[in-house]
Amino acid sequence: MRIALDAMGGDHAPRETIRGAQAGLKHLSDGDQLVLFGPEDVVRGQCSEIGLDDPRIEIVHCSEVIDMHDSPVEALRQKRDSTIARLAQQAGKGEVDAIISAGNTGAFVAACQLRLRPIKGVSRPGIAVVLPSFHGPVVVCDVGANVTPKSHHLHEYARMAALYSQYILHVEKPRVGLVSIGEEDAKGNTLVKEARQMIKGDPAVEFVGNMEGRDIFAGNADVYICDGFVGNVVLKLTEGLAEGLFRTIISEIKAENEDLAEAFAPIVDRIWKKHDFAEYGGAPLLGVNTIAIICHGRSDARAISNAIRVAEEYDHANLNQVIAQRLALHQDEKESA
Amino acid sequence: MRIALDAMGGDHAPRETIRGAQAGLKHLSDGDQLVLFGPEDVVRGQCSEIGLDDPRIEIVHCSEVIDMHDSPVEALRQKRDSTIARLAQQAGKGEVDAIISAGNTGAFVAACQLRLRPIKGVSRPGIAVVLPSFHGPVVVCDVGANVTPKSHHLHEYARMAALYSQYILHVEKPRVGLVSIGEEDAKGNTLVKEARQMIKGDPAVEFVGNMEGRDIFAGNADVYICDGFVGNVVLKLTEGLAEGLFRTIISEIKAENEDLAEAFAPIVDRIWKKHDFAEYGGAPLLGVNTIAIICHGRSDARAISNAIRVAEEYDHANLNQVIAQRLALHQDEKESA
Repeated sequence: MRIALDAMGGDHAPRETIRGAQAGLKHLSDGDQLVLFGPEDVVRGQCSEIGLDDPRIEIVHCSEVIDMHDSPVEALRQKRDSTIARLAQQAGKGEVDAIISAGNTGAFVAACQLRLRPIKGVSRPGIAVVLPSFHGPVVVCDVGANVTPKSHHLHEYARMAALYSQYILHVEKPRVGLVSIGEEDAKGNTLVKEARQMIKGDPAVEFVGNMEGRDIFAGNADVYICDGFVGNVVLKLTEGLAEGLFRTIISEIKAENEDLAEAFAPIVDRIWKKHDFAEYGGAPLLGVNTIAIICHGRSDARAISNAIRVAEEYDHANLNQVIAQRLALHQDEKESA
Repeated sequence: MRIALDAMGGDHAPRETIRGAQAGLKHLSDGDQLVLFGPEDVVRGQCSEIGLDDPRIEIVHCSEVIDMHDSPVEALRQKRDSTIARLAQQAGKGEVDAIISAGNTGAFVAACQLRLRPIKGVSRPGIAVVLPSFHGPVVVCDVGANVTPKSHHLHEYARMAALYSQYILHVEKPRVGLVSIGEEDAKGNTLVKEARQMIKGDPAVEFVGNMEGRDIFAGNADVYICDGFVGNVVLKLTEGLAEGLFRTIISEIKAENEDLAEAFAPIVDRIWKKHDFAEYGGAPLLGVNTIAIICHGRSDARAISNAIRVAEEYDHANLNQVIAQRLALHQDEKESA
């Protein structure tokens, strides 16, 4: 397979993206290519700086970069030779099998929606993120691709995200929950109530009911479905709160006793590593007809390397084909209903 | 003033509510009464068990209790002599000035909406909760009273919650943020975009822009406005994640070194206390024509006592009158527009 990587995407690009590419080579099979998108001189310079010289590496020259703060749609219109625009374009033409970027998420999603067909049976793609809960990784979908979804979009997310959990995180029978504000059928807004009926009635989904905010980290489901607005707030609140809590704990320990702080440091490190988003290699945009992996803006080389691993696993599992089959089943039901 | 307390509300009632009443007496002014609602024999029994015998305590007999798992509307219809139904009824008649319950939140809100007039100028009441951020307490409104608000409801919440922050938390000029998924005007759903224009254009509100999930604990605003669905997820995710993180850290430390765990215990206690919801005495239902305080289901005596303190402060600040004046200003603007 050919995996395309946005060499210029993210806060630590191109240094960490290229180092991530180097580290990610170990995940490639024979005959695979890793294609770096970016200004050729910059990419070559970084490669030679870290001694990255491998026949599986290719470079596709792009003269522009979409900034983190650029308006997605505007930027795509104006920067036609940007790494993100070119990634989606090449994926649309089938010239690459997977695209990975830690750059402007909005632009990446918009480019995918513009240049790529959806998988048959999918109305709107959704971003599935893996959160490291205390009971193992859980999938939350959508976290921002679709802020005003219809209920059947949530139903599609339930099916797709469950397959992602099963095929990539190897959860045998993923339990799917719907994020709401109470357990009962009557709780929630109209969107959630409608989606609940659809998902509940779907024999292809192991639905375990409505889930409240506090369930997400309590191990009560493996997959949490919500609209992109709620999911985005969940994702960012989780990051902010976890970081803030660790900082608070460390500063309280230091205030108490410097020696204790030293003894505590490796434990904090271990907990961080166990619950590190970088471990899960980015968030797939489920439902588009390629393997599209969105990495965190703060991705380091390890996160990029893991995203390459996930792209390989996604490809080996033939996940998009599995999704198409599962969604076709869905389509048949709708048509026979 | 007469403060009415649901003696039967919450996971630890009536023991902790009555103990909370006892502790809360210290917040009462001369001539105030604290009225306990519940089955008279149960309430009297608890009072005598802890030696609570004070002329400021009264009892209002109610024969029924709405359970945590009862459907709010159903329960209110069937249990007309329940503590929650009677609290709202008496507040509606002006027989008490404040009502406090740690019981079924949905039933409490529904009872208030049924039995109490809104403050003039308020279309829908909203629950304002105080979250202990790392930079001091912040207010989030709404957290569940109104799951499908209109944009002008969010505007009203912005005004009311800012006044709550100012008058009760003593933040001099509360910075108000709108929970969204990006800073820009164009980010968010229709509700947020519309509300943003209203709040931004309101000289009575110190609007500091859209806030993402990660801003909530980062000290970037003092008041966060959102719909009741999002707010409820934020509140419960925060509780679940914070508790889970502490549990994880403690178990990791124990696995490493039992002595270290012992040294760490008082630090955890201190952080917990600093960031304890019980400190802030419950969440007011802003916009109804009484002082209505919703306590956490897990409230202990300290939380109940703090709720009594907040009811007193709320009354002294004449907050509902301040809200009415501020909202009347709003009304005038709308009419002259």
